[in-house]
Amino acid sequence: MTSDPVRLGVAGLGRAFMLMVPTFKTDDRVKLVAAAAPRAESRTAFEAEFGGKGHEGVEALANDPDVEAIYIATPHQMHVEHVLAAAKGGKHVLVDKPLSVTMEDADRMVEAAEAAGVHLIVGPSHSFDAPVALARQMIESGEFGQVRMVQALNYTDFLYRPRRPEELRTEEGGGVLFSQGVHQIDIVRLLCGGMAERVTAMTGAWDPARPTEGAYSALISFASGAFATMTYSGYAHFDSDVWMGDIGELGAPKDPAGYGKARKALVGLDAEAEAKLKTTRTFGQGSAPAPATRHEHFGPIVVLCDRADLRLTPEGVEVFADTERHFVEAPVPAVPRKTVVDALVAAVRENRPPAQTGAWGRASLEVCHAILRSAESGESVRLERQCSTTGEEKPA
Amino acid sequence: MTSDPVRLGVAGLGRAFMLMVPTFKTDDRVKLVAAAAPRAESRTAFEAEFGGKGHEGVEALANDPDVEAIYIATPHQMHVEHVLAAAKGGKHVLVDKPLSVTMEDADRMVEAAEAAGVHLIVGPSHSFDAPVALARQMIESGEFGQVRMVQALNYTDFLYRPRRPEELRTEEGGGVLFSQGVHQIDIVRLLCGGMAERVTAMTGAWDPARPTEGAYSALISFASGAFATMTYSGYAHFDSDVWMGDIGELGAPKDPAGYGKARKALVGLDAEAEAKLKTTRTFGQGSAPAPATRHEHFGPIVVLCDRADLRLTPEGVEVFADTERHFVEAPVPAVPRKTVVDALVAAVRENRPPAQTGAWGRASLEVCHAILRSAESGESVRLERQCSTTGEEKPA
Repeated sequence: MTSDPVRLGVAGLGRAFMLMVPTFKTDDRVKLVAAAAPRAESRTAFEAEFGGKGHEGVEALANDPDVEAIYIATPHQMHVEHVLAAAKGGKHVLVDKPLSVTMEDADRMVEAAEAAGVHLIVGPSHSFDAPVALARQMIESGEFGQVRMVQALNYTDFLYRPRRPEELRTEEGGGVLFSQGVHQIDIVRLLCGGMAERVTAMTGAWDPARPTEGAYSALISFASGAFATMTYSGYAHFDSDVWMGDIGELGAPKDPAGYGKARKALVGLDAEAEAKLKTTRTFGQGSAPAPATRHEHFGPIVVLCDRADLRLTPEGVEVFADTERHFVEAPVPAVPRKTVVDALVAAVRENRPPAQTGAWGRASLEVCHAILRSAESGESVRLERQCSTTGEEKPA
Repeated sequence: MTSDPVRLGVAGLGRAFMLMVPTFKTDDRVKLVAAAAPRAESRTAFEAEFGGKGHEGVEALANDPDVEAIYIATPHQMHVEHVLAAAKGGKHVLVDKPLSVTMEDADRMVEAAEAAGVHLIVGPSHSFDAPVALARQMIESGEFGQVRMVQALNYTDFLYRPRRPEELRTEEGGGVLFSQGVHQIDIVRLLCGGMAERVTAMTGAWDPARPTEGAYSALISFASGAFATMTYSGYAHFDSDVWMGDIGELGAPKDPAGYGKARKALVGLDAEAEAKLKTTRTFGQGSAPAPATRHEHFGPIVVLCDRADLRLTPEGVEVFADTERHFVEAPVPAVPRKTVVDALVAAVRENRPPAQTGAWGRASLEVCHAILRSAESGESVRLERQCSTTGEEKPA
């Protein structure tokens, strides 16, 4: 399958884009031809590095005739405006998770993409990690019977990474649900078939200096009969990467001497200084993260099936079967996040969308909101906007 | 504090007693003076080893004037009859978990002990493990602020250990809730103050050949504002001891070559042969388990507090604080399960009962039933019979 590279434009040259740079640089199935960013220095850095065209606004990017598809990596609350502009310009869309903050915005995006006849893919998220895809393949093979129960846990320093003020306000998409929970929800939904039915959850917002949700636990059931627990803490204490062979989220070995780094870096900073510190983690500033030697991951995940439990690791999937255990490696490709480009190319060139469509992303967003609502009410919440791994939607 | 050893009688010489033998043999604060067991060979073995008196029935044991306290280690469904007999005989009681199968039986036992003016202690359970006690001390010191969230997980081969038929029937106390869940519930309640408020849960009974609950996940909230998830699988696939340094439940290093042993041992056995296999794990038969080099444990447990997360290990408690992490060892005492004898002696000699009283055990049993009820109804269940770590009960 050799075809012209997908000519990609990028909206937003922040942290999310920076984490995709190694992919875009090494995968020749995609070519960066343009970008939009409000900061002139980001545009200059982009043009210098990729030779493409820097636009000030996303509308101009969406009307750039050289662009086939746009990767939208702007802050959550701006996704709707940018996806609508891209669809209007007839471009396919890869939009960073979460699809949006509100369900209304998600509806508008899904409808706009449908009306324009363009693909809308929500990603990258950790549901694209190769060990997740491998586990899903194993499940779909039927070898181990039905999926019965999943545990997903992640303890990180998320809440203490440098933030813009709105990232600490839940109603604007701040807190761990929209940025982090959605990864876990995407993964668990993929492993359980996608059609969540009901969720009960508790959340915690325990640091008055960062008054948004920093943690949650949720119990979720699926149409298949499977159920799962999802737990997340971003409070920068226990680090569940100790259960992942000390490999960090981005696939690089972790230095134990770095313990407490996130909190220490914030000491004495006001909101402005903190927001400024965040810009040092964007494209054209600061340094790239340590190179990955393993797959990215989103914390310990165990999938209990009839005839084996599957444990996802940064290297692949460990299979705990009836009488023996063995390990199935997911080879680390030369191109990082290759699976994201796989999905983009298959959609744009072959009209084969991945599981992670707009409707899928909306379903994961519904779970985020349901977790918040359940935690507030103390009651379980029924899910009504779900979507299966093969794209079937629950009739409303 | 030197005093006469507590003169102890034992009802039931099965697996539970066998696991207490090293304690009774090495702790000179307790002296085994009598036992009751229906099987003559068990009584003979007991008399030969301890020089005490073997009774055929528990009533005779309860009336033995040489006995001060009785350890009741009979099958769950017989606890009520034996506790009532012991109380009637004026003996203090240490009764194995679970206190009973039904709440009505629990009420009768609590009332009988109160009426007789004897102590009723429910144990041993893993809530007596020294790292649990250490974590509780740390919490009560206030050093780390409030407990906010707890995760407790355990993946074992429980469902495939040899069973008597009733141990595979939920209504007779079979399945993972009454035998295993109650450990986890006891531990989580101790760490969160005891007063559970509401639980939502799902259970699984996925092996038609062993048609009782083999797994569950529960989300539970407490009066303190803390919440917890509890997950258990006894399906003998993933083994969460890999997250406990490959130390098994009883504190001994685990041989990785033993993977799948439990399922393999059952291959081709009918119910009768399986029940017979179980007797090889009782006192006077078969061999004792491998000697413990660490503390017993009940799987990975993480306690999230305001200023640190505490991870329980078979060696102690790892403290993940704001800017540094450190480890606090819980020294392994010369006497295994020393904390159980501590509790017994404090109650009998000094009238200071432990947290794990009859009312406490009833509260943990209530959570077991609530988990089953929630799983059946799909609704959350309010808890009404709870009891705090200091013995306060919720007004009915």
